[in-house]
Order: sequence, then C-alpha cells, then structure tokens
Amino acid sequence: MDLVTIAIVLGLLAVVYGFVTSRQVLGAAAGSARMQEIAAAVQEGAQAYLKRQYTTIAIVGVIVAILVAVFLGMVSAIGFVIGAILSGVAGFIGMNISVRANVRTAAAAQTGLQEGLTLAFRAGAITGMLVAGLALLAIAGFYGYLTMLAGYTVGGDDRTVVDALVALAFGASLISIFARLGGGIFTKAADVGADLVGKVEAGIPEDDPRNPAVIADNVGDNVGDCAGMAADLFETYVVTVGATMVLTALLLSGVPQLAGLMALPLLIGGSCIVTSIIGTYFVRLGKSQSIMGAMYKGFLVTAILSIPAIYIVTQLALGDMNAPIQAGDPGLVANVDPGMPLSEEGTASQVGGFTGMDLFWCSMLGLAITGLIIWITEYYTGTNFRPVRSIAKSSETGHGTNVIQGLAISMEATALPTLVIVAGIIIAYQLAGLIGIAYGATAMLALAGMVVALDAYGPVTDNAGGIAEMADMDASVREKTDALDAVGNTTKAVTKGYAIGSAGLAALVLFAAYTTDLAHFFPDLDVDFSLENPYVIVGLLLGALLPYLFGSMGMTAVGRAAGDVVKDVREQFAADSGIMAGTSKPDYARTVDLVTKAAIKEMIVPSLLPVLAPIVVYFVITLIAGPQNGFAALGALLLGVIVGGLFVALSMTAGGGAWDNAKKYIEDGNHGGKGSEAHKAAVTGDTVGDPYKDTAGPAVNPMIKITNIVALLLLAALAAG
Amino acid sequence: MDLVTIAIVLGLLAVVYGFVTSRQVLGAAAGSARMQEIAAAVQEGAQAYLKRQYTTIAIVGVIVAILVAVFLGMVSAIGFVIGAILSGVAGFIGMNISVRANVRTAAAAQTGLQEGLTLAFRAGAITGMLVAGLALLAIAGFYGYLTMLAGYTVGGDDRTVVDALVALAFGASLISIFARLGGGIFTKAADVGADLVGKVEAGIPEDDPRNPAVIADNVGDNVGDCAGMAADLFETYVVTVGATMVLTALLLSGVPQLAGLMALPLLIGGSCIVTSIIGTYFVRLGKSQSIMGAMYKGFLVTAILSIPAIYIVTQLALGDMNAPIQAGDPGLVANVDPGMPLSEEGTASQVGGFTGMDLFWCSMLGLAITGLIIWITEYYTGTNFRPVRSIAKSSETGHGTNVIQGLAISMEATALPTLVIVAGIIIAYQLAGLIGIAYGATAMLALAGMVVALDAYGPVTDNAGGIAEMADMDASVREKTDALDAVGNTTKAVTKGYAIGSAGLAALVLFAAYTTDLAHFFPDLDVDFSLENPYVIVGLLLGALLPYLFGSMGMTAVGRAAGDVVKDVREQFAADSGIMAGTSKPDYARTVDLVTKAAIKEMIVPSLLPVLAPIVVYFVITLIAGPQNGFAALGALLLGVIVGGLFVALSMTAGGGAWDNAKKYIEDGNHGGKGSEAHKAAVTGDTVGDPYKDTAGPAVNPMIKITNIVALLLLAALAAG
Repeated sequence: MDLVTIAIVLGLLAVVYGFVTSRQVLGAAAGSARMQEIAAAVQEGAQAYLKRQYTTIAIVGVIVAILVAVFLGMVSAIGFVIGAILSGVAGFIGMNISVRANVRTAAAAQTGLQEGLTLAFRAGAITGMLVAGLALLAIAGFYGYLTMLAGYTVGGDDRTVVDALVALAFGASLISIFARLGGGIFTKAADVGADLVGKVEAGIPEDDPRNPAVIADNVGDNVGDCAGMAADLFETYVVTVGATMVLTALLLSGVPQLAGLMALPLLIGGSCIVTSIIGTYFVRLGKSQSIMGAMYKGFLVTAILSIPAIYIVTQLALGDMNAPIQAGDPGLVANVDPGMPLSEEGTASQVGGFTGMDLFWCSMLGLAITGLIIWITEYYTGTNFRPVRSIAKSSETGHGTNVIQGLAISMEATALPTLVIVAGIIIAYQLAGLIGIAYGATAMLALAGMVVALDAYGPVTDNAGGIAEMADMDASVREKTDALDAVGNTTKAVTKGYAIGSAGLAALVLFAAYTTDLAHFFPDLDVDFSLENPYVIVGLLLGALLPYLFGSMGMTAVGRAAGDVVKDVREQFAADSGIMAGTSKPDYARTVDLVTKAAIKEMIVPSLLPVLAPIVVYFVITLIAGPQNGFAALGALLLGVIVGGLFVALSMTAGGGAWDNAKKYIEDGNHGGKGSEAHKAAVTGDTVGDPYKDTAGPAVNPMIKITNIVALLLLAALAAG
Repeated sequence: MDLVTIAIVLGLLAVVYGFVTSRQVLGAAAGSARMQEIAAAVQEGAQAYLKRQYTTIAIVGVIVAILVAVFLGMVSAIGFVIGAILSGVAGFIGMNISVRANVRTAAAAQTGLQEGLTLAFRAGAITGMLVAGLALLAIAGFYGYLTMLAGYTVGGDDRTVVDALVALAFGASLISIFARLGGGIFTKAADVGADLVGKVEAGIPEDDPRNPAVIADNVGDNVGDCAGMAADLFETYVVTVGATMVLTALLLSGVPQLAGLMALPLLIGGSCIVTSIIGTYFVRLGKSQSIMGAMYKGFLVTAILSIPAIYIVTQLALGDMNAPIQAGDPGLVANVDPGMPLSEEGTASQVGGFTGMDLFWCSMLGLAITGLIIWITEYYTGTNFRPVRSIAKSSETGHGTNVIQGLAISMEATALPTLVIVAGIIIAYQLAGLIGIAYGATAMLALAGMVVALDAYGPVTDNAGGIAEMADMDASVREKTDALDAVGNTTKAVTKGYAIGSAGLAALVLFAAYTTDLAHFFPDLDVDFSLENPYVIVGLLLGALLPYLFGSMGMTAVGRAAGDVVKDVREQFAADSGIMAGTSKPDYARTVDLVTKAAIKEMIVPSLLPVLAPIVVYFVITLIAGPQNGFAALGALLLGVIVGGLFVALSMTAGGGAWDNAKKYIEDGNHGGKGSEAHKAAVTGDTVGDPYKDTAGPAVNPMIKITNIVALLLLAALAAG
C-alpha cells in the first residue's frame, strides 16, 4: 500500500473510533427528567451558538475563499475550503457530543467515580481523535489527491502543492481565530454577565436555570475548552505537518528519499493516532483512586507506545535508517557539526547529510518536550506545589497581595518552558538542521489526539457539576463531579501550555518556510535578515507589540460583551414575570445568540490585527526603504510576534490556572476556607485570571500563526502578481 | 577654546547652578519645631539608608574595579571608578537636598501655592542639573584627559579610549542597579510594611511618627524617585553619549571632521544644560493656577531653546553644515538612500556621506520623541483621559474588574510609545544611518536635567504632605501640598516613560557598538546575525525571558522584605512601651537600616541575572556550536532583552501610574468617592500598581543596559585574553 494511503487509513481509524465511541456515550443513561430538562436547555443554547457562529464563519469564509481563488488560484481555494470545513466539523461534532455527555456523566457518577470518569473522558476523546484524525485526513487526503490523482509534482518549480498546503492551513486558521477569540470572549462574557445579573442584581443562586445567562455560561464552557481547543490544535496540527512537508519540498527537492520524506510526517501523525486510541483505554482509576493519575496513565501509555511506532514508520518511509539524506544543492540543507562556521548567506553549510535515525531522535525530542511542558505546567498550576500555595498564602493579606503574587508567578512560569523550547531548538538543529526542528514540532503535534482528549474532558465534568447542582442531585454525586472537575482545571491549563509551546515551535517552522519561500520566489532580492539591519529591529518591535495590543483588546472586550448579556436578561425578566416565579421558561437561545453576536462584534478589530499587520508593515517599509527591507521587516515581524507572544501566552495561561486553583485550595479549607477574607481575595485573583487564561492568553496562539500564514500568502500573491 | 573644554565648562555650570540653588533652598524657613522634629527623623533615616547602601556599593565596587583592572587594564578601571563615584555623588547630594526641602516646602506652602511649588521644583532641579552636569563632566573630563593630556588617540587601532568610555558606563550601571532595584524594593517594602504593622496591626493612622516604618516609607519616596531616577538617568546619559562617541570612533575613523564629531555629543549635552537651567525659571503658575501647566511651561521653554542651541553647537563642531561626512572605508558608514539595496554583510552600503544638517535633524527627532513620549504617558496616566477614567469606572463592579481593566490599559499603553520609537529609528536611519539613531538618543538624553527635575520634584511634595499631616498643620496647607503631590504622581510616571524610551534607543546604540566592536576584535570570525540562524532565535528568546524573570523576582522580593519590616517594628513596640504612649522616640535609623539590608539581600539574585546571562549564554553556545554562534546568540540576547524589556517596562510603569491616579480620581469624589466600594477596589489596583511602577518596571532599564555593557566588556576581555 502506498505510504500516503496508509496515513489516510489511519486518519479514518480515528473517525471510526469517534463514531463507535460516540454511540457508546450517547447510549448511556441520560438521568432524570429534571436533569434532561436542564441538559436540553444547554443543548438548545449550544445549537444557537453554533448556528450564529458558523453562519458568520460561512459568510467570511466564502469571501476569503474567493480572494484566495483570485490571488492564488483554484487549487489553493479548494485547500482553504477543506481546511475550514474539516476544522469546523471537528468542533461541531465535539461540542454536540460534549453537551450530551455532561448530563450522562452526572448520571453515571451516581453509580461510581470510575463510571463518571470513563464517560466524561470518552466524550473528550471523541473530540480529540476527531481533531487528530480529520486534520490528518485533510492534509494526507488533499496531498494524496494532488500528487497521485491530479498529477502535480513536488520538488520542482511547480508551487501548486506547496501553496495548496499553506492555503489548507489558512482555512483552519479562520475557524481557529473565531473559535478561540470569539469563543473566548463568549465564554467569559456569559460567565461575568450571569454573575452580575443573577447573583448580584436578582439575588438568585449562581447556578439557577431561571437565569438564561447561566445556561449561556454552561454553553460557554464547551465553547472555550471543547470547540476552541479543538480548532486551535486542528490548526496547529495542519500548520505543523503542512509546514514540515513544505520545508521538505523546498529544502530537500533533490534527495532520492523525497517521496518517503514527504509522507513521513503524515505517517508519524497516523501512528500516534493508533497509540492515542490505545492510551484512552488505560484511563482508569488505580488503587489510589487518583483521577489525575488515571489521566497520566493514559498519556504515558500513548507516549511510550509512540516510541516504537515512530521508529517503525520512519523505517517504513526511509528504508535504511542510517543512509545519509543529502540534497543536490548542498547549500540548502542545514546540518551543522558543532563548531562548524556558517556560510555567509545565513544558511548553514552542509557537511554530510543527516539520517533517518537523526529524524527519529528529533521526533523523540518532540515527545520529551511535550512531557516536560505538561509537567512544568502542572507544577505551576497544581495545588500541591509552591506556586499555587504561595498565591493562596498571599491572599491572607488581601486582594492586592493575591494579585501581585499571581502576576509574579505568571511571569516566572514562562522561564522553564522557554528553556525547554530553547534546548529543543538547539538539539534538533544539531541533529538535522531546520528539518530537525520541524520533526520535533510534528512529533509534539502527533500527540494532539490524546492531549485534546484531556482538555475536552474538562467542560463535560464542569457542566456535569452544574447539572447536578441545578437538578438538586444527591450530595455524594456532587462530590464526585467536583472531584472530576478539579482535575479538569489542571488538564485545561496543562493543555494550554502544550498548545502554546507547540505553536511556538510551529511558528519557527513557518518562519523557515517564509525565508526559503522568499529565496525561491525572489532569488535576485538580497534580503538582509541580520539584526544589524534597523528594519529587522523595527519588525521585531512591531511584532512583539501585536500580542500586547491583542491581549489588551481581548481583555476589555469581555467587559463590554458582558454588559450586553446583563441588558438582555433584564429585558427577559421584565417582559415575563413567570420566569422568576418558575412558571415559564426563559428564552435560552435568545441570550446565547445575543452573546454570540456580541462576541463576534468584539472580535472584529483584534482579529484584523494579525491579518493587516503583515500587509501594512510590508508595504510601508517597502515604500520607505525598498522591497528587500520590506521583506526583512516582515520576516522580523513574524519572529517578533513569536518572541513576544510566547511570553504573553505562557504567562497568561499559567497565571490564570494558578489563580483558579489557589481559590480552589482555599475552598478546600486552607487559610480560613470558604467565606474567609483570604477566600474573597482569592476570588478576585480568579476573576482576573479568567480573561487571562480563557480569552486573551489562548487566543495568542492562532494570532501568531495567522500572522505567519498571511505573510506566506502575501509572498505567494506578490510572486504571482 | 577647545570644544571638549567648552563642554566641561558647561558641565561645571550645572554644578554651580546646583550649589547656588541648594543655598537658596536650604536658606528657606524650615517651619515649626514639630515640623523640624519630623523632618529630622526622615533625615536620620536617609542617612542610615545612604550609609548602608553606599558601604555595600563600595565593597562591591572595589571588587569589580579590581576585576576590571585585571581583565581590561588600569585606564578602564579608573573609568569605572569615576563613573561609579560621580553617579553616587549625584544621588547622594540629591537625596540630602530632597529630605531637607520637604519640610521647607510644607513651610512655604503656608505662604502660598507658588512659593511651595518654587521650593519643591528648585529642589528637584538641583538633582536634575547634578545628574546632567556630573554625567557630562565624567565623560568630557575623562575623554579630555585621555586625549589631550595622556596622549591617547581615537580612531586608530588603540582601543584604550573606547574601552575606558565603556568602563565609565559600567561604573554608572553599578550604582544604577543598586539604586533602582535595591531602592525599588526598599521603597515598597517600607510602604507595605508600614501599612501592615501600623494601620492593620496597631490600629494607628497611616502617617504616624510613632511607627518607625512610616519614616522609612518617607525615606523610601526619596530613594525611588530621587536617588533611583538620578542614578538611572545618569547611567543612560553616560551610556548614550559614550556609545555615540564609541560608534563615531569605530565607524568614522577616517573622516576629516573626526575631532569635531567626537566632541559634538558632549556639546549637545552641554548646550541643553544651559537651556534646562533657563527653563527652570519658567516654572511658574499662570492665571489658571495649573501646576502641571507650570511644569510644561518650563519643559517647553527648554525644548524650544534647545533647537537653536543644538544648531549652534553642531555648526561650531563641524563648520560647514552641508559638507558631506564620509569615511575612508565606505562599507562601514551606514547611510542609505530609500530603496538602495543593502550589502551582503548586513552593514548598509555607503552612497555619499551624511551632513551636519542631517545630524541636526536627527537631534531634533530626539527632542520630538521626548515630547511625544511625555505626552503619551500623560494621556495614559492623567486623570483627564479615557484610560484612567476607564479603570476608575471599572472599580464600581469590584476588585477583579479594576485589576482586569488596569492590566488591559497597561498592555495597551505600550503601543504608541513603540510606534514613536519605531518611527524615530526609521527616520534617523534614513537621515544618517546608525550614527543618526545615536544622535537621536543623545538629544533625548540631553534634556535629562529638566526631566529629572520634574521627577525629583515628586518625593519632595510627597514628603511635604506627610509632614503637614504628621505636624497637624492647617487644612489649607495640606490642600496645597496635596495639589502639588497629585502633579508629582503624573510627572513621576511621565519621567519613567521617558527613561525607558531613551534606554531602548540607547540599547540599540549599544548593540551597534557590540557588532562593530565584534568586527573590530574578531575580523576573521564570520558571525551570522541573521534571523535564519537558530542560535539567533535562541538568543532572542532567552533575552526576552530576562525581563520576565527579573520582574517576577522584583515583585516577590517586596513582600519578603516587608515581612522583615513588620518584625522589626513589632520588636521595637514590644521593647519600649513608651513609643506607643508617645513618651519616647522609636529608633528610626534601625528600621531604615534593616529595610536597606533586606532590600540589598533581595536584590542579589535578580541583579546577577543581567551580569551572568550574557556570559553563560556565550560560553554554553560556544561550547555547542562554536564562537561564531556564541557571539551571534549573545548579540541576539542583547536585542531580545530590549524587545522583551521595552514592553514589560512600558506596561508596568504606565499601568502603575494609571492605577494610582484612578484611585486619586475616585478620591476626588467620582464613582462614590472615598470609602465607597469602588474606592476599595481602586485601592487594590493601586497596591498592585505599586511594585509595577516603583520596583519591577523601572529596574528593567538598568537591567537592559547592564546586559549590553557586560557583553561589550566580555568582548573586550576575550579579545585581550
């Protein structure tokens, strides 16, 4: 069987897993009538959200698809549409399963903790496998069609396949920015709005179905950590695997192993789908009854099985693992022995090719980086360690000291992940140059199925707890859903650390694609990417500014959208007094639709930043100092946005998670427990952390990648024009 | 008269101004016995602080001086000592004047607002003029001695003068990190500690002289915004003017106008001392009685008079303003016509030299940048504009929303200054290449005398208010000192924006010195600073990490040092019950000495970061990938620390100022006024903003420059070894 076909089959396997498992999940008991009634409200809200969101995306998507067709041709436009649709499908199915699994998890928790855990985790795993499977199908299928059926070739002067893969990633990005930024604003606006109008104004409990914003809040949980994370990692997956293939085509066009090398990233992705599926069956409580331990068991099984799996597919693709891979043009492949001088052009000089074994070790590096980042994030956001406890302790002296300590921890939390990423870059580059870095990133992303499963588990248990509360279920059930939910907070934070770390590496690969692309399209232009060129510094500064501006806009957007929620709920309460009396049902869909609209309105300006900034910077600097400096500043902008964005995103996601769990730690009876002054201070910290970790922080990921992809598309459009 | 001698005379003029004005200030009436008693306590505290701080600096300084002598020779060691001593003298005299002017300002405010303003501003102006004057004297005197008396030459192969100027800057940096970071921890630890042990524990008022930490808090005001800012800008001044001269010597060694060009930065500094002195006499209340207006009048007069002044000295130094300045080696001078391609080496190719007129315009650009940054910072921190008002409004909905809005504003506040700096870099480079950027930075710093005056005015009025409170002076006096103090909050924020902006430009000049130095010392080493070199990316990431780690450490240090304060005051209260009864005086000096010790202990680890990071990065990367990549990563680290640090510092200083004034705005009777729920939330924001704007944020400046200077010294040491 052809290598690409194998990858397609493995991608289909993930879809089959999703289908089979979703039948299991939906077949579980859905609880009492009261529980089902509340769950139906959430499902109704989710429908309203998806309808409004996807209608908007469809309109924007059609316009962008036409632009892509005009500037880059029909094949690219098809790639764009495929990327957008499959990413959308993964999020759509994932959310639909999630809002049905929540009530079933609550029901299963009546039987036991293991039953609740299994149901919630399976629901998350459906989203996870669909993300990895559909992303792999998108690239492998489209690539297979173009090369095997449509007859396009790779490695020559025809750029159709490369452009099409970039356009595919762009399609995924479109969904990603909507799901991450729009979804992030939605989820926090609903949360804040529900509190303001319900708890503060109307004096009803936090989880009360009479308040339509409460249902919107429950929908919001799924919007952020199910659909949002799905779209985010779908994009990173497509971008990383696609960019690795693009780089291979650009840098290694002359090697005899080219066909195998083009298929290898797909095979790595495919083999890890198998190991991820196996891993899901190991998520079981041990004797210690540790839920987090069960999660780690699943992840560890996947990671360990991936080692032989990746070795096997590498050998399958390349044959001899020790045969050198050497390009016809020795100047282009970057593989430097320690201490070798670099050539003047800035690309490393070639001193003997790398081998399949080197690529295998780079993939192992990717697995190691994933493990380390997960471990570091847990240290910074788990209740057992110094960081969260220091925030909890600082809450004793008031709101101010809680926030100060939280900010300090959030800044500190950037250090170890940065060192891990830096070490990864150095080792991978030593092993196999730029291609080595690309393989490290690819292996990281290959685990996406398992990682998204951990994340998407979170909102299911969160909702399950809410339903248990609203349906007045037994306290013992609530206890179990609470235990499940607490772990969800950590896995959500952990996944975000992984997402930004992998996005950082992916962006480096994209930058490499940009520079090689540039050399390909404009061979006569002598672009100086040196730090001595002031336009490079200008680009770096402007790039680093983007995440700051973007983060600022994201954080203020939540407040404004929450105001709209308050107004709508007030109107509903005023128009129908039966709502408060409990005799008539509020219009849940209306509130959800309104928050969705508000979130979409609020995301327009910030989402234009990563689209317009590369274009404006290129044209303005070109006008002032010529195209070679325009391209230099644009390239530097891409790196600036990574350098700046990595720290903003890491600090926000880790800080937000730490604040959240510091509150939880106090609620567990430390430093005075619930209701104490320390608890009030911790609530303040949690409020600050919310837009940090759920809106601004995670949205930096897609922003970084969109900036990069727009630059690549700009390059292709300039070359075509 | 020789050009350098003229600059020395103008530097002396500033010292004379300081002497004459300090006699005026000290000759003013010092108020009632009660006022003098309190002021004496603050003076006693200041003495204790200075003694402990300067003893420590002396010990560290002697060790470093010996290291400099061993690695770089005697002349450099002397330069180091001169830089350290003169910077220390400026801070020492400034603080001594400041803690004597405070009580006299309170006394003068009894007569009228103008009298209080004049006294406080004169006191600030003494510090300002001493900073500019002594910094100018240090460079001009040392340079004059080396070239005119000791017979060293510039522009040839002898590096003595260049190394000596770098060592001079390093001496200033030593004081700067102690004053900024140690001082920043001191001032906030005293502030927080005083509140905790006095207001919270003992239940005595905020400003109560029975609490020895209250006196430490008053001392702290002067430590941060008088001595700290003085050392910071002394350093930036020396670094900028020195680096401009170093760059001139390295890049323009062949031009006939070399002697004049070496002296021109000194003359620009000298001429602006004259215009700054004139400007101080225009700080007078107009009909509107606007204090801020009076300040701006003084600044504007200085800025406008500086235009002809700089023109005159440029003509004096260069003769024909339109004669081209063209180096013997055309590859080194960077002056690019728009659209001209850059050469392969990364330095711009020469297309006809620039002229004196171009340098004049670059200086004008520096004045314009200063004005714009001041204006932008006032917008973000003044109570009349959207940002502060939005924070005040968000306080109505609680502590959390106040902090969220403040963080959003702090991030947004980085945008306009970055755009101004980027525009400045582009225009200056278009006019006269790298030298143009250096002249922009030099002109910015030339106004340091006036700007430090605005800043050092702040603690005088702050203390005056405290004394008026503690001495139970008439409410009308307190009203006037409050009005003076409110303006001080804005000028303090404004100066910090200026300090970080100028530090950013200065660091770019330092980076240029690093690269040209590298080419000079290691002409055979082909260092690749291109963004395509992964070691450059590694350097950028590690550089950008430094301000995050440094900021995190600074913020947590405050809390620990405050704990020491609380313990000491508790002990004093327990040992002598007469203190609370008011019959015996607490030991003010003991508490101040203890906070100083605690602050110095806390600053050890963070201050080692900028010293060790360049060294570690160079040696580790050299070990892995050879010296050419070690130097590339080190260079990238220098730019990374600027790119990362600029945003951290700008956001922290602007955000802190905005939170502070949002509280003030509410206290003025808006959103419920003092005591309302909104006010409580605003107090939380102010608490968060304190370490932002007074500890971590401003300390990023010296950190950036120390990293750069250590890299230059490492280079020189490697070349010598």
